[in-house]
Parts: sequence; C-alpha cells; structure tokens
Amino acid sequence: MKTLPSNSYAQLCDHVREIALVQSIESLLEWDERTGMPAAAGSYRADQMSHLAGRVHQLWTDPRMADWLAELAESPLAAQHESDAAVTIRELRRLYNKKVRLPQALVEAISRAAVLGQQGWVVAKRSGDYVGFRPLLERLIALKREEAAAFGFEDSAYDPLLDEYEPGASTADVACVLAALREDLVPFLNAVVAATHHAPAGQRPGSRKPAVLTPVGSNAVLDGNFPLDLQAAFGQMAAEQVGFDFGAGRLDVSAHPFCTQLGPRDHRLTTRYAERDLTDALFSTLHEVGHGLYQQGLPAEHFGLPLGEAISLGIHESQSRLWENLVGRSRAYWEWMLPQAKRTFPSALGDVSLDQFYRQINQVRPSLVRIESDEVTYNLHILVRFELEQELLSGELTATDLPEAWSSRYEQYLGVRPANHSEGVLQDIHWSAGAIGYFPTYTLGNLYAAQFFEQAAADLGPFEEMFRRGEFAPLLGWLQNNIHRHGRRYSAGELVERVTGRALSHEPLMRHFRAKFGTLYGVS
Amino acid sequence: MKTLPSNSYAQLCDHVREIALVQSIESLLEWDERTGMPAAAGSYRADQMSHLAGRVHQLWTDPRMADWLAELAESPLAAQHESDAAVTIRELRRLYNKKVRLPQALVEAISRAAVLGQQGWVVAKRSGDYVGFRPLLERLIALKREEAAAFGFEDSAYDPLLDEYEPGASTADVACVLAALREDLVPFLNAVVAATHHAPAGQRPGSRKPAVLTPVGSNAVLDGNFPLDLQAAFGQMAAEQVGFDFGAGRLDVSAHPFCTQLGPRDHRLTTRYAERDLTDALFSTLHEVGHGLYQQGLPAEHFGLPLGEAISLGIHESQSRLWENLVGRSRAYWEWMLPQAKRTFPSALGDVSLDQFYRQINQVRPSLVRIESDEVTYNLHILVRFELEQELLSGELTATDLPEAWSSRYEQYLGVRPANHSEGVLQDIHWSAGAIGYFPTYTLGNLYAAQFFEQAAADLGPFEEMFRRGEFAPLLGWLQNNIHRHGRRYSAGELVERVTGRALSHEPLMRHFRAKFGTLYGVS
Repeated sequence: MKTLPSNSYAQLCDHVREIALVQSIESLLEWDERTGMPAAAGSYRADQMSHLAGRVHQLWTDPRMADWLAELAESPLAAQHESDAAVTIRELRRLYNKKVRLPQALVEAISRAAVLGQQGWVVAKRSGDYVGFRPLLERLIALKREEAAAFGFEDSAYDPLLDEYEPGASTADVACVLAALREDLVPFLNAVVAATHHAPAGQRPGSRKPAVLTPVGSNAVLDGNFPLDLQAAFGQMAAEQVGFDFGAGRLDVSAHPFCTQLGPRDHRLTTRYAERDLTDALFSTLHEVGHGLYQQGLPAEHFGLPLGEAISLGIHESQSRLWENLVGRSRAYWEWMLPQAKRTFPSALGDVSLDQFYRQINQVRPSLVRIESDEVTYNLHILVRFELEQELLSGELTATDLPEAWSSRYEQYLGVRPANHSEGVLQDIHWSAGAIGYFPTYTLGNLYAAQFFEQAAADLGPFEEMFRRGEFAPLLGWLQNNIHRHGRRYSAGELVERVTGRALSHEPLMRHFRAKFGTLYGVS
Repeated sequence: MKTLPSNSYAQLCDHVREIALVQSIESLLEWDERTGMPAAAGSYRADQMSHLAGRVHQLWTDPRMADWLAELAESPLAAQHESDAAVTIRELRRLYNKKVRLPQALVEAISRAAVLGQQGWVVAKRSGDYVGFRPLLERLIALKREEAAAFGFEDSAYDPLLDEYEPGASTADVACVLAALREDLVPFLNAVVAATHHAPAGQRPGSRKPAVLTPVGSNAVLDGNFPLDLQAAFGQMAAEQVGFDFGAGRLDVSAHPFCTQLGPRDHRLTTRYAERDLTDALFSTLHEVGHGLYQQGLPAEHFGLPLGEAISLGIHESQSRLWENLVGRSRAYWEWMLPQAKRTFPSALGDVSLDQFYRQINQVRPSLVRIESDEVTYNLHILVRFELEQELLSGELTATDLPEAWSSRYEQYLGVRPANHSEGVLQDIHWSAGAIGYFPTYTLGNLYAAQFFEQAAADLGPFEEMFRRGEFAPLLGWLQNNIHRHGRRYSAGELVERVTGRALSHEPLMRHFRAKFGTLYGVS
C-alpha cells in the first residue's frame, strides 16, 4: 500500500527532528568542551563527537529519506508555493542532496580532526607554536578538499564549502561584493586616517607601506580596573536590556566567544573578560547576544526543521553585528549605558565623558587582531582570510607557507605585520575546526546588517531617541517580525529583497561609515 | 564461515564500548541539567535524554549481543577463571540477561519520567509543594513496578531494582545486615544521647517520644561568614590534597551534590555552599571526592567494560564515606586542616580550638535531613527510606499516604518530625529520578568503608600520624591497589572477603563508633 504524502511528510519531519535532536547533543558536547571540560578529557571528547557526527550522517542518509523526498517532490504538498510544507520539502531536498554525497567515514574523520584541531589550536595559540599545530591543519585541509570533491563543484572547490555556511552563495558573487566594498572602503579609510595624526599601533619600523594613522584618543582613556565578576553582571544586564531571555539561556566564559543553541529554548552565549578592559568583553557579549536574539526569535515549534532554523551564517552574523556595532557602538546607546557603567565602575570611569568614550570605542586603526578591530577595517581582515583559505584549498598555498602569506597580506592590506603567530595566523579558531568558507559570512553579515538597519530606521523613525532611553523593543520587534520568525522560508537573497526592496549592496554599509566616521573625523 | 571466539570477543568489546560512549554523553546531559541548564530547556532535555537512553537500550539488545555472548559462553576464553576475558564475558552476560527483558518503550518512558521527575522535584523542594509533585512520583512508581515485573523476581519486586545498584544483593540480605546494625546501634545511640544534656534540634513540643538529647556544643561555634568563592577555592584545595586530579576533573555547584564520569579521564564533582557554614559544603565535597578518587583509580584503558567499572554503588559509597567520615571527620585530619582553614577564614575561625571544632563536626543528634546528619544516626535515615520504598513498590503504601508515613517513621526511629515537606519527604532527589532500591547502598557503603579502613590501618600502621602531616597518598595507594584497580573483577562480597579476610559485617562500623564517639562522649 502506498503511503499518503501527508504520512510521508509527517514521517520525514519526525526523522529530521530526530537528527536535530542528535545535533543539539553534539552542540552540548562542544559547548562543554569550550567552556570547561578538563584538559585530559579531550581525546575521548573527540570520540564522543565523531560518534554523534557519524550518527547524524547515518540518519541523513537513511534510505527512507530518499524515498520520502522523491515522493514528496511530486506531491501537491510541494506545489503550494511558500507554504510551510513546500518550504520544508524544498530545503530538506537541498540539504539531503548535499549530505548524501559524503561518505560516512569522511564525516566522522572530519568531526574527529576538527575536535582535535580545536584542542591543538588552544595550546598553539597560547604558546605561539604554529609548527606544532601545522600537522593538524594539514590534515583538516586535506579532509576539506576531499569533502569539496565529494560534494562536487563546477568553478571552485571553495563553492560547496561556502555553500555549507551561506546556502546559494557562490565564491564569485562573494568576491564581487567584497571587491565593490573594498573599492569604496580603502579611499574612505585613507581619508579617515589622513584626518588623524598618530602612528598606527602595530606598525613596525621599516615597513614599506605608507603609515596608516590612528585617530585622536588612545586606549589609555578606558584603561582601568574592571573586576571580572562585576563585568559579568554588567554584561548580563546589558544582554537583558536588549531583550535576551536568560530563562532560556546562559552566559559563560570561553577562549573564543560563541553562541550555540542546545534546544528550542536553550541558548548559550560565551564571552571572555580582561581585567583592564571593559569594552572588549562587552562588545563580544553584545555580538553573541545578537546571535542569541535571532535564535530566540526563530519559531521554537519548528525547531530542527527548516522553518525553525537560521537562513545562513551571513544572516546570523547580520544580527550579531547589528547589535554589536549599529546599536552597541552608537552614541545614543552610550548615552543610556555610560551612566550605568559609571555606577558599576566608578573609579575606572568616573572621569570619562560621553564624547571621550564614544571616540574611544570608535577608533579607526589598522590592527592585527580581527575580533578587536574597528568596524571600518574589520572587512579587510576578512578579505585576507577569504583569499588565503581559497589558496589553501586549491593547493596554491601550503600550510608551511601560510604564516608568511598571512603576514605579507596583512602588511599589504592593513599596513601591519604580526610579531608572533598568536596575534597572526593562530588568532582564529575557525580553520582549526575545519571551518573553511566561513569567514566571508562575517562581511556578508556586516552588509546585511547595514541594509536591514537602514530599512528599520526608515520604518520606525530614527532610533537615537529610543536607544537613549534604553528602548530596544521596537527594533527587536522589527527584526523578529521581518527576519527571525521566517526561519528558512526565504533564501538570504530573497529575504533582503523582500525586507528592503532591493538586492544586497555594499552601499548601506558605506553610507553608515560615512555618516558615523565622517562626522567623527571630519571627512566625507 | 564461523567467526573465531577472539573475533567475537573483540566485536563484543567494541560494541559495549560504544554503549558506554553513548552513556557518557547521557551523563553529560544530566550533569549540565543539574549544574546550570536554563529552566526553559527542561522539556527538550527530557527528549534528548530519553532518546539516548533508548539508543543505549537498542545497542544492548542488538541481536548480535545474544550471538556473541552465547558463542563466548562456550568458548575457552570464558573458562580461564578470573582472566580479563572471563570476567568481561561473565559480567556482560549478567547485564545482558537483565537488559534484554526490558521493552524499549519502557526504558524510554522511565528515562523521560525521571528527567521530568527531577525537574519537578527541584521546584517542589523549593516550595514544599508535595501535592504538585505527587503525580510525577506516582508515574515513576508505576513505571518502576513495570520494570521490576519485566525483570522478573522470586521473593520481592524490590530485588531486581536493588540488583541494579548492588549486583547480587538481595532484599533479605540487606534487611538482615541493617537489622543487625540497628540492634547494636540503637542502644549505643541511646547511651551517647544519655551522656548529653540538651534537647534535640527539631523535636517538636508535645512529641510523645522520649527526648533524644543533643551533645554538648552547638552550631553557633562554627557559625560565621564564609565567602562562597573562598569556600570553593578551599574545597578544591582539600580535594587536591587527598589526590583528586583536576587535570581530569571539575568541581561545580548543584542543588544536590553528585559525582559523575563523562569519559575515562573526565570526572565531575559538585557540591553546594552556604555562606554561614563551612563544613556542610566541605564534607559534601570530600564525599564526592571519594567517589571521584574511585573513578580516577579505575583502569582507564578498560573504560566502558566491566574491568573499568565500579563494582556496585555500595562499594562506590564505601569510598566516598571513607574520605568524608573516616578521614574527613577524624581529629588527625583537622590537626592538618584547621590551621589552613583559619588562614583562609581568619575572622570566622580565629577563636575556635581544635577540640571545639572536632566536637562540633561530630555532634550526634537525631535530625531531619539525611545529608546533614551525623555518622551514627545516618543509618537510621536510610532505614526509613529502605522500608518506605519497599512499601511504595509493593503497593502497601500509596504516594498520597507517603508524607504521613515518612513523618511517623521519622518520629519512631529518630524522635523528630519534619515541619514541612522540604525537610521531610521532598529532601532527596532519588525517588524523583526513579532511583528506587538505591538508598540501602549508602548504609552498605558505611559498612564496607569501616571494614576496609580497619584493614588498611592494620596493613599500614595507624593513620593519625600521616593525616596530621597531610599524607594521604599511602591510604589512597592502598585503596587503588586493593579496590580501584580491579574494576568489576570481583563481586562486592568477593572483594571484601579477599581484602579483609572476612564477609561483610556491621562490627567494624560499630567498633569505629565505639572508639570514636565512646571517647568523645565518655560511653562504651
């Protein structure tokens, strides 16, 4: 007897929900590993994670999946354009058609290598020992190459990997939008730099590049004693103020801040604190809160199914960058926040004026470390990584030559050169976790954020008055309504068109830069 | 082609190692739930845990298990008495023969009910609302009854449940040793009580029982301000001093202290702190450290197989009670520890003498809460639970009548009656987690601990001199060598005979009581 399509649909959804459940357990293993697992537990943790990764893959490639999807593709359910069922079937077919190409052994090998790679990275970053870490990276690059080949591709091995993070995006598209951004950004950056008079931090004597200058102000303004427990409480308060629900979430500490979802109502953020610096941790927290708000805004009843999932990492990142930069680094936000910060840290911040503070957190200065960089130069950090990871994958560049390539590219694009690997090629966790093709989603996120925020401001009137009073609910509501609640109903491209009336462009981000930094530094 | 026995043996071991791996992941889910999971995540966590419990059961009841075990039972491997392979085959057959009787649906239902039960218990304990909690308990009792029936039994439904925690022990055996202990313990307790002159804490006006008296000294001696962060550091130091390896472990906070193992080298302890009380948390910590030392002493290379596992909860508990009571509540230990405690908490402990401290932590006083009770009365708390849970299971007692039965039994055995359910029937997590048959292992643990410790002292000379100097390595080495390293090679009964030359008896514990409390209170 042939099953009815609706039966197959229910069975398919149950099966995919089971996959999500196993993945959510995998996420807990990863969260635990990164927030506090004892050091000696690392190798068994890799076994645990690769076991679950293998199980997830087994479930994806269950022969019933092919039967259900083939049957449903032809059924009336799939024909109702934009209906829940049609969206679900479309997205699951897309995912299935990719996953089914990967051999089980490769999936488990990548999972294991990624866990060991991250563990090795933590040690290597601390010691600066790139050579000790290199074999782990080489293994991962080889495996990711195998993965790209198994997926198959037309133009570039990078395409199918990028597609894992940014479904539907091609390497050529991303390169194109990055190039357009770069073309406008570099002259603007030079103008900002020319308007200032200090030598850049990190610039080495004898560098052949023209000096890229730092704006007025120095870190010393915000240097002070910020006890860690008070910072944690302050960060938690800031997260609550913008609407993060701690009844369904936590905020912990890890070496590399991240946000993960362990269930429909379990959202975990991490950050890290430095005793002498308030804003570094706070902006990390706001960034992860932005991710967390997106997750909390996804429909919990669809958890594990496409309608309950984030569209892409670019869209995910648009939410984190929006709260971190467009809200968190705005003057209006600190009109609201600085008095509270002064109450918590009176001795460290008592003498700082709003203007000093605002300038300080918006210094534009080419620097070495991506996650400490300013809004303007940030995207040049991404460009370096985007180019290098393509070359690593294609074999143009070897892991042996990577550190030198990294340093040269930093010198070329940012005018600075790392003095050691910890602040150079070892600064990010991504490659050590096998995440190749991930970095460009950060810049896509910046672009989407600016375009969404411009539209939200047009719809709701200017935000300054609201932020000044600590009113973030209107903006969050707009994001929930226009972005979060749709899950994967639309592709990233469709969503941005639908919400803003036009395709993704670098212009809103440039308009934001010109308005904000042009005013701050007197350039246009 | 018939597989060789050695092939089947390797396949069996790999399969059982995979089961242990999935169970270790389940343990992480539970650890996370109890140490910090957001409240709203509870229901999905139950789904995650019952999924894994179901998976574990699927793996246990894999048809290949029956084939491997049947083949190996007849093979020469099983015939080599006490060889690794023979022990492994024997223990896996025993476990398999139990597990295979449980229907998959029942296993998943119990897992889910246990997670929801624990979550409900946390709320109920806080509010004292037993009636709200009762349906969860009723559901669990019904399921455990089903489980006992599925296991099958001759004398008592309690037998197969007890056997889950204390393999090979029968209800009748346990009742017998508890009765023998009670017979000696009650007159001794009365003599201790008669030697003191205060009214007992918790005794209610109008109680018909003769007053059971408190010894000299009162809690006020140790009342003080003990900041939580200093307590945490002090507890961690105490754990390190006795040999717990934090490279392969952690110490966290939970409502009900516990110890769990998440892998061959991942041992997690929890405790809880009260600002006005140092010793409550510290003894909880030492207790869990004792469990952790046992786990850390099991052969890591056999993790997941019988030779890498604890024998029984009674033996497990013997290790925790030994470090908590026989070491931690000894005078010699505090000769070493009190000066350190005074350095950490000078204002709270500056004026306390060793004698005052030692008397204070060894007050004998019938009280309401098991985990706060003294060594002597502790076993009467167990007797109450042992009797009540048998009656709940048999149906003699209903969940509706349980609170009154609890209170009456406390009045009868301890002369005290709870004023509310939080300090009465809701005080323990066990039943809410479906753990029926667990409690008697605590008293078995006390008995094993005393018998092992007496033997260790006979072998190594008196310990006082060593403890006084902070030397715990000889005792730990003795435990590792005589108990830990064997895993499940011997049954609990065989082990105690092998190590101490005689069967388990209540006499060593009574000798310890007479020596210690007899001296303290001038009774014999």
